[in-house]
Amino acid sequence: MLLRRLASTSAWTLPPTIRQVLSSSGTDQVQLCGWIKSVRRQKNVTFAVISDGSCPTGLQAVLSNTVSSQLKGLTNGASVRVSGLLVNSRGTGQAKELQVDSIDVLGECDPETYPIQKQTLSVDYLRDHAHLRARTDTNASILRLRDSLTKVLQQFYERHDFCYVHTPILTSSDCEGAGETFRVMPSSIVPSHAPVNSDSSDVPSSEFFSKPAYLTVSSQLHLEALASSLSRVYTLSPCFRAERSQTNRHLAEFWMLEAEWTWTREVNDLCQLVEACLKDALILGIDEEERRVLAKGVPDYEQRLRCLEDAASSKPWARLTYTEAISELEKYATSTGPKASTFEFQPVWGRALQSEHERWLSEVLVKGPVFVTDYPSSLKPFYMRMNDDGRSVACFDLLVPYVGELVGGSLREERFDALRSRMSALGMDTEGEEYRWYLDLRRFGSVPHGGFGLGFERLVSWVSGVENVRECIAMPRWARRMLL
Amino acid sequence: MLLRRLASTSAWTLPPTIRQVLSSSGTDQVQLCGWIKSVRRQKNVTFAVISDGSCPTGLQAVLSNTVSSQLKGLTNGASVRVSGLLVNSRGTGQAKELQVDSIDVLGECDPETYPIQKQTLSVDYLRDHAHLRARTDTNASILRLRDSLTKVLQQFYERHDFCYVHTPILTSSDCEGAGETFRVMPSSIVPSHAPVNSDSSDVPSSEFFSKPAYLTVSSQLHLEALASSLSRVYTLSPCFRAERSQTNRHLAEFWMLEAEWTWTREVNDLCQLVEACLKDALILGIDEEERRVLAKGVPDYEQRLRCLEDAASSKPWARLTYTEAISELEKYATSTGPKASTFEFQPVWGRALQSEHERWLSEVLVKGPVFVTDYPSSLKPFYMRMNDDGRSVACFDLLVPYVGELVGGSLREERFDALRSRMSALGMDTEGEEYRWYLDLRRFGSVPHGGFGLGFERLVSWVSGVENVRECIAMPRWARRMLL
Repeated sequence: MLLRRLASTSAWTLPPTIRQVLSSSGTDQVQLCGWIKSVRRQKNVTFAVISDGSCPTGLQAVLSNTVSSQLKGLTNGASVRVSGLLVNSRGTGQAKELQVDSIDVLGECDPETYPIQKQTLSVDYLRDHAHLRARTDTNASILRLRDSLTKVLQQFYERHDFCYVHTPILTSSDCEGAGETFRVMPSSIVPSHAPVNSDSSDVPSSEFFSKPAYLTVSSQLHLEALASSLSRVYTLSPCFRAERSQTNRHLAEFWMLEAEWTWTREVNDLCQLVEACLKDALILGIDEEERRVLAKGVPDYEQRLRCLEDAASSKPWARLTYTEAISELEKYATSTGPKASTFEFQPVWGRALQSEHERWLSEVLVKGPVFVTDYPSSLKPFYMRMNDDGRSVACFDLLVPYVGELVGGSLREERFDALRSRMSALGMDTEGEEYRWYLDLRRFGSVPHGGFGLGFERLVSWVSGVENVRECIAMPRWARRMLL
Repeated sequence: MLLRRLASTSAWTLPPTIRQVLSSSGTDQVQLCGWIKSVRRQKNVTFAVISDGSCPTGLQAVLSNTVSSQLKGLTNGASVRVSGLLVNSRGTGQAKELQVDSIDVLGECDPETYPIQKQTLSVDYLRDHAHLRARTDTNASILRLRDSLTKVLQQFYERHDFCYVHTPILTSSDCEGAGETFRVMPSSIVPSHAPVNSDSSDVPSSEFFSKPAYLTVSSQLHLEALASSLSRVYTLSPCFRAERSQTNRHLAEFWMLEAEWTWTREVNDLCQLVEACLKDALILGIDEEERRVLAKGVPDYEQRLRCLEDAASSKPWARLTYTEAISELEKYATSTGPKASTFEFQPVWGRALQSEHERWLSEVLVKGPVFVTDYPSSLKPFYMRMNDDGRSVACFDLLVPYVGELVGGSLREERFDALRSRMSALGMDTEGEEYRWYLDLRRFGSVPHGGFGLGFERLVSWVSGVENVRECIAMPRWARRMLL
């Protein structure tokens, strides 16, 4: 028989990572692989720190000089395989170290040209070297934090019986008014390296999808359809906005955690779920060792940490209506003396809150996370549920210190007539194909429901203290910047 | 103080779902919400099955006719809130039932116009009603299966210390040769409802990202960069191909599980990990009740199930080299008599395997999953590691019955000189910006590594027995089709 039968895979496993070895107890003979982070040669012995990216602390390898002297390639950035005995460390700074029997350099690294030198590198320089920046302690830690936060949030939603779903990235709807969208078409229609207005005679007259396709700006409308049968759904999905503004909170491609669930009737209920899941993220999402690594690059880390610890406490987060918020902002805006307003924009009921207003509310007034609820309907999209006052909608924005808006959500208008009137008033076509399906959700067994979207990079920024969202994602994209 | 302080959220939870209620023990007074799936009126009592999508079986609600007679809206598809006592059922078909005290119709559903009628609906009809099709048992079950498979796979990768990462969807690279790509640009550049070759005078001459942007066809190259610092990474990410062919295995937008890890040197090691994770998916990914729901729509379900159970056993999966596979295919192709070949295409060493070849290998020769390894380098992309024979590469395709290719992977060429020579031979620019970063991964601390990509919808199809991948994703997109 020609088929090669192999041993059963039941006992199959990968070799241990440095994290696994360091978290095991006892002394052991081990073999490990990783990259050299630093080398320190002493008279009789050489210390090398080796990292495989599995944990914030590398492994200290101790090489007698008879071992290390044979190795010219033992430089920062080189990849090595080491064998030896893992013992309790006699030095300070690490619990265990490896007494190396043998070391092999697998991939050399020229210390002269290696872009990731040991001195502190600027964020701009590291953005230019996006393919290697995860080799720095901070950037590796941020990527592990994303993994950890994802896990904690997924566990939260699983515990509450939400179904994790995948909503489409390509959509025919560009109507959310959430900023400029990206348009998609097959490359063959667009000459690949020429401006799109070139006179191309082989352009097919029909669209690939028979209608224009856009990249999604939010999964919400699709989540509503799925919540109309599965009751509780969430997704962690890429979203896209053709933002030209260059801020530390915006990317052209970012990830959003969005949840939508039924049988909910109060904005307060939405806020409670958001608060509960974010407290889980704050408490369980990051451990002490990772915190120490991340703290290094953040000047005011102690202050931020106190703020995070306060937010993670059992004390409930503050809530204000938009009207109350405007009233507080107005008071401050007209104050005089040493605490006089520094606002550039006047807060006015009916106008959007500016970034400076949002930050003042959370950083100065509340000194912590604050839910601002019940905004004027004129400031919010068509799908939000109208309050009984006829001028505000049942919605919230969660503002947090340092970041500003972290989450936005609302009850959705589940009353068919109310939704159709609102859409008509906004000039939307309630008879056409584009929204027929959305209205159908209210036509057939409509249910009270609501949900929210949470900017994942902003959450990473908040939890880590890392200022700019460009550092909070592996390979950031923004206007005029798309490396790799 | 204006801030409204609320009770602590620590005890906060959502009301139970039907799944949670049914899996609790004992009898209880409960309140539940859901959609009516069926109503059966008898002389003194009305039975209604209510589902909230949280589990395959709904809840049987028993209404005395004094309760149900007041309700004209008690129709299929209506949303209701019911209260009552949960008791052990006296009937067959369910363990528990709800003796209803009160029932409220929250959202009516006109039985005449409701698109999801109770009789069996064709897949084409349901595709046309994508926004409501998750209200059918089968489609809801498929969505829960996606959630369940995701969870099982994530646990597998977590256990093996992989880091879950997000790779970019927008990329400057369209070079993988993996089919036609989609091109992306801001909507403002393209008139939104006109053909792209219209003479638009306000088209900016520069690209949004300063270079052409495409939707990713695979996260692999980006995963390689991250594995070069984190060692073990994986992602579950949307991928895009502007496929015009209409098959039951292809979508324009699909999800791929891709993993990449370092310090691995054998195709056999890659296959072992893939086999272990897929056995987890087969064993843990689907429970008996969901299977029963899914079985209903699949004519040859028993046969498929036996095949899946066999694949899930501890018996190792078959492995063949490409050369061995061609030899077996040739033998069959030239056979005569009652078992004569039905191949349309002649199997020839050096040519790609056709679908019919792949299916024959797994369905007839092996009768189960089979890894085909070491394809000729001319058939595979530039990044695969050349074998010592100089003509084949260290790669595999996993072929499974009914589906065909489920996974493809390889060792990656980690030797700088070998990679550069191969790229040059293929006419690729090894000096330019496009691949400089990819070569850098081999320039600085290169490591042996490999990985694979697994088509998530194909996995769902394999596990569920659902024939077409268009049913294996909530809102499928293919050429000329993009609803919602």
